[in-house]
Amino acid sequence: MAAALRINPERLTEDLAGLSRIGLHEDGSVTRLAFSPAELRARQYVMHLCQRAGISVRLDGIGNLIARVEGDVTGEAAVAMGSHVDSVPRGGRFDGAMGVIAALEVVRTIKEAGTPLAHPLEVLVFVAEESSRFGVSTIGSSAMAGTVEPDRLLGLTDRMGHRLSEILARSGLTGDDVAAARRLPGEVGHYLELHIEQGRVLKEAGEQVGVVRAIAAPCRLKIRYQGRADHSGATPMDLRKDALVAAANLVTYVEEVCRAPGPVPVVGTVGMLDVRPGAINVIPGEATLWIDLRSIGLEARTACRDAVVARARALAAERGLTCSIDTLMDDPPVVLDSGTTEVLADVCATQRLAWRLMDSGAGHDAMQMAAITRAGMLFVPSDEGISHNPREWTSLPDIVAGAQVLLEATVRLATRAGRAGAVTR
Amino acid sequence: MAAALRINPERLTEDLAGLSRIGLHEDGSVTRLAFSPAELRARQYVMHLCQRAGISVRLDGIGNLIARVEGDVTGEAAVAMGSHVDSVPRGGRFDGAMGVIAALEVVRTIKEAGTPLAHPLEVLVFVAEESSRFGVSTIGSSAMAGTVEPDRLLGLTDRMGHRLSEILARSGLTGDDVAAARRLPGEVGHYLELHIEQGRVLKEAGEQVGVVRAIAAPCRLKIRYQGRADHSGATPMDLRKDALVAAANLVTYVEEVCRAPGPVPVVGTVGMLDVRPGAINVIPGEATLWIDLRSIGLEARTACRDAVVARARALAAERGLTCSIDTLMDDPPVVLDSGTTEVLADVCATQRLAWRLMDSGAGHDAMQMAAITRAGMLFVPSDEGISHNPREWTSLPDIVAGAQVLLEATVRLATRAGRAGAVTR
Repeated sequence: MAAALRINPERLTEDLAGLSRIGLHEDGSVTRLAFSPAELRARQYVMHLCQRAGISVRLDGIGNLIARVEGDVTGEAAVAMGSHVDSVPRGGRFDGAMGVIAALEVVRTIKEAGTPLAHPLEVLVFVAEESSRFGVSTIGSSAMAGTVEPDRLLGLTDRMGHRLSEILARSGLTGDDVAAARRLPGEVGHYLELHIEQGRVLKEAGEQVGVVRAIAAPCRLKIRYQGRADHSGATPMDLRKDALVAAANLVTYVEEVCRAPGPVPVVGTVGMLDVRPGAINVIPGEATLWIDLRSIGLEARTACRDAVVARARALAAERGLTCSIDTLMDDPPVVLDSGTTEVLADVCATQRLAWRLMDSGAGHDAMQMAAITRAGMLFVPSDEGISHNPREWTSLPDIVAGAQVLLEATVRLATRAGRAGAVTR
Repeated sequence: MAAALRINPERLTEDLAGLSRIGLHEDGSVTRLAFSPAELRARQYVMHLCQRAGISVRLDGIGNLIARVEGDVTGEAAVAMGSHVDSVPRGGRFDGAMGVIAALEVVRTIKEAGTPLAHPLEVLVFVAEESSRFGVSTIGSSAMAGTVEPDRLLGLTDRMGHRLSEILARSGLTGDDVAAARRLPGEVGHYLELHIEQGRVLKEAGEQVGVVRAIAAPCRLKIRYQGRADHSGATPMDLRKDALVAAANLVTYVEEVCRAPGPVPVVGTVGMLDVRPGAINVIPGEATLWIDLRSIGLEARTACRDAVVARARALAAERGLTCSIDTLMDDPPVVLDSGTTEVLADVCATQRLAWRLMDSGAGHDAMQMAAITRAGMLFVPSDEGISHNPREWTSLPDIVAGAQVLLEATVRLATRAGRAGAVTR
């Protein structure tokens, strides 16, 4: 019976620790920017682990690592797992890396047990999941899923003015290679990703595993108010055109509109607010705010966006200000495959874990892979919900619990015994 | 009859233009920081103008320039006029400088006419009126008025770490000199200051002169909220501790409380707001705001301050945030001498000017001089209310109108004929 398989916690911990040392800073954070030597070394590290385990590896045309164990029959669609090894500047050791090592551990465990495979297994290590370098996230997985035109990816430029096309050219890669990174329909039957939650829902609920139903891609707005910078003492209240007061009203409105009960939750955040000229005795003549709206419900998110935009304009009109509104991003939310989600949920229930169905507020590679395969996703708790930070932490028992669910789900999806078991349940 | 005296607009313009060239930038702004070589040169420039006009000059123990024309009788209290020649970094050409040159023009005009003087006349050029260098304003006038302990002034330190005591020592000045800058009771009978409004009240009303009744010194608060920086996508609305939303609520409350009708107007401004960590996908864990509250009514201002502080604390408590509140400044408002204000108002009325009684939201040297003499103040319009900016502008006709009121008031206060005229009216 497949349930007898257990992942090896010591090996998982050791390999994750090894990966953490690449790009490590003294404060415990890691920096492995997309396409940097540190990301390259991290990918190389995973390749060595694969080869030591007898798993064949190849790189696709944008640099994604594909480690593969063939099934007993050729031509079947693969059951793939994975995540990324790049990081934000001074990010945490678990974001992405944990999911890659757990996926490898699952494949190693199944391979070592000699379990007959109805489907090939793959570990996918995507390049450039984080948006820190190019302002765009999930670059590698969107190339594999073919969700973004190769030319758009090649034209991306980092803050130093380096184009992605030039960076790839140094590795001998061209636009044709990037286009060829796209997987053909039927190549990958399922994609499973284990990731840290990066929020505090599981931790506050005291649960070990979250099964993700949907991923809430963000809608991002940049709104700038322009009023008039006047002397704070010499200008009566009724003669002011204070850009900050308008912006502050909008900040409170974003919270209000997102807190209002609705069929699907929406979260809204103003993470940046810039005030000019910024002196204690000058009324702000300009205030710019950046708004991030997310929901798994596109309709609910769009309703919030429309309400925020309408209020932004109304505030400007009421106060005699000008107001410019830029939409920086407006990606649709992604609902993950319901069948795969059911398998993951059933495994959690069978293992008697404290678990829940939940949505992901953060974007992930699974979001792209959902375009070409049946994608599912698992979360494990983040201490205090902290991520992208040296204090990012997930306990070993939680990682092991998540990896064990990943193993069991993979067995169910990739082996004849597992599939039969699922059918007879 | 004294009303026959007219100031010389060409000379006034020429001398003001000459002063403007000291510390001038290409964009038309000037930088003459307190105790800088540029301020020194500006003071020197005024000394030359005085000496050319046969007016004796001396410097007091902190560097204030005192130009004096003796009266016909010794021992009478002086009628003084003046302002400052220091500026903010890249400030305007009228702030302070216009009042100094106008005062000089008034004294020159009276002297040239040979008008008999019952009281000596003085032009006062105060050092360090602007707070840009030491974070404290009206340094020179507070030394002359003795409103601040000399040791507190000597201990002031600029951003480069230079102590005022060291700066003065380079000119051979000690604490004793600063203490000796204090004028004795009865030395100065009146102090009149002509200044640009730095607000838009006169301009919006289409008036040429404002007679200032009171100066609203600021109460300044620095309020810092600390919450928790979480992922903007992964943190539900009800699990957030968003420091910016609390700060934004307080910004809107400052406006609300200052707009509420009351017996005396209060103005409130949040000119600076700092958000940390400041990323589009991170809920702000920290937000700091700086609040500037002003009124000529201490009671009204204190009521607003108390309301703002109470709301600041309530917002923190409601939202599970911590909140620290620092009072950076809490100077009382200054009511100017009613008799002097009446004289200035009567001159405006007699000259059939478009004028008004008003209050000053900005601080001025007159605020300090009010402690030792009967102080009065005149405003002339600022185009668009702009000040501390290269676009600061006051039209020549308005400057001439203001200087003419200053002249007429000085004649009334300092000559026997003027005083008799005032009495018989």
